[in-house]
Amino acid sequence: MPQQERAIRTRWAILEAAGKVFDEWGYEAATIAQILAQAEVTRGALYFHFSSKEDLARGVLDTAVTTEGVLPQELKLQELVDASLLLAYRLTREPLLRASLRLSVDQRARALFGTRWPDWIEVLAELLRQAGANGETLPGVDPVQVARLLVGSWTGVQLVSDAVPQEGELVHEIAALFRLVLPAIAVPEVLPRLDVAADRPLRLMSEAGVPAPN
Amino acid sequence: MPQQERAIRTRWAILEAAGKVFDEWGYEAATIAQILAQAEVTRGALYFHFSSKEDLARGVLDTAVTTEGVLPQELKLQELVDASLLLAYRLTREPLLRASLRLSVDQRARALFGTRWPDWIEVLAELLRQAGANGETLPGVDPVQVARLLVGSWTGVQLVSDAVPQEGELVHEIAALFRLVLPAIAVPEVLPRLDVAADRPLRLMSEAGVPAPN
Repeated sequence: MPQQERAIRTRWAILEAAGKVFDEWGYEAATIAQILAQAEVTRGALYFHFSSKEDLARGVLDTAVTTEGVLPQELKLQELVDASLLLAYRLTREPLLRASLRLSVDQRARALFGTRWPDWIEVLAELLRQAGANGETLPGVDPVQVARLLVGSWTGVQLVSDAVPQEGELVHEIAALFRLVLPAIAVPEVLPRLDVAADRPLRLMSEAGVPAPN
Repeated sequence: MPQQERAIRTRWAILEAAGKVFDEWGYEAATIAQILAQAEVTRGALYFHFSSKEDLARGVLDTAVTTEGVLPQELKLQELVDASLLLAYRLTREPLLRASLRLSVDQRARALFGTRWPDWIEVLAELLRQAGANGETLPGVDPVQVARLLVGSWTGVQLVSDAVPQEGELVHEIAALFRLVLPAIAVPEVLPRLDVAADRPLRLMSEAGVPAPN
């Protein structure tokens, strides 16, 4: 394996390990020793990539805002739904993504590093602005206010779903959340055209030629 | 002051102090010493009421599920809205309530004590069942599923509102959340009769003769 590729893989393995430890213990209680044990790398390798626990947390948080897998759609509201469903689908499969959300919720980490919620709000607000310009949204839909509510709702539904499990995975609850809020966002002509099925992420990924994680 | 009343006040002061410390530091990093300093009581007084940090956390969590201030209404959906708005109004004024929510979100505390979300889900699901029996809800509204989504959304909107402040307080965002979801819950004849104004908690409390906190 070329040296550069190996370095990228090691960095990623360390980030994933940090994510798992932060996720289980919370930022404050997590230690570099735990992360080393989880990553199965040497102390030297870890410090080559990250100078401190703070630096590791920033690295984890930098993975939080991702629209990977979202394809351009005729309806901008569909792209908004797709971004939200894909994130739910990936979150249960990618520990790093899960950890980045957990660090936003962790009060100590939040005080130190802030959250990526403002970036997510801006991503969804921009999609809502474009949807508004296309005549897809009801009059009175304020892009920033609705984006704030969607980011908040998505986050909280994930937390409750995790703490009070039920049958079916997160993507089903996020799909149900969108069926609950879309009638107050989309105009009646657009509403029935939106695909909010829980298996949409899988179909999108196969369309994009991305191999499904599992 | 009679001795019993003094004991109740001391217990409450300790719980409020524990709430503040848990809220700021997270459960894992919080120490009894910090709680003592915050409560301004003796170590003896604290241990008379609570045997450990675990015991303090349980005491804080026990205050989490409250429908104080909710009055019986003709529409059960109005009671559901009232419970949600009142909690938002009180949360910004009562550190203990805020801390009990924060402990539910804290991953370490959650692993040790669980959360009060199942109780909240049951409170809202029961109101939705009654609303359904009264013909207030649309066909297809599943009380437990919608209650889960509402508890999740409420929690996450509070988190994001706290982390990414904007003008106006939490109760305005929770009111906006309900305006977003109610069209998919209430039948068209009931929807315009629901009062989802942000000043409703204040009016309810004055109606009940409760002095407003501030």
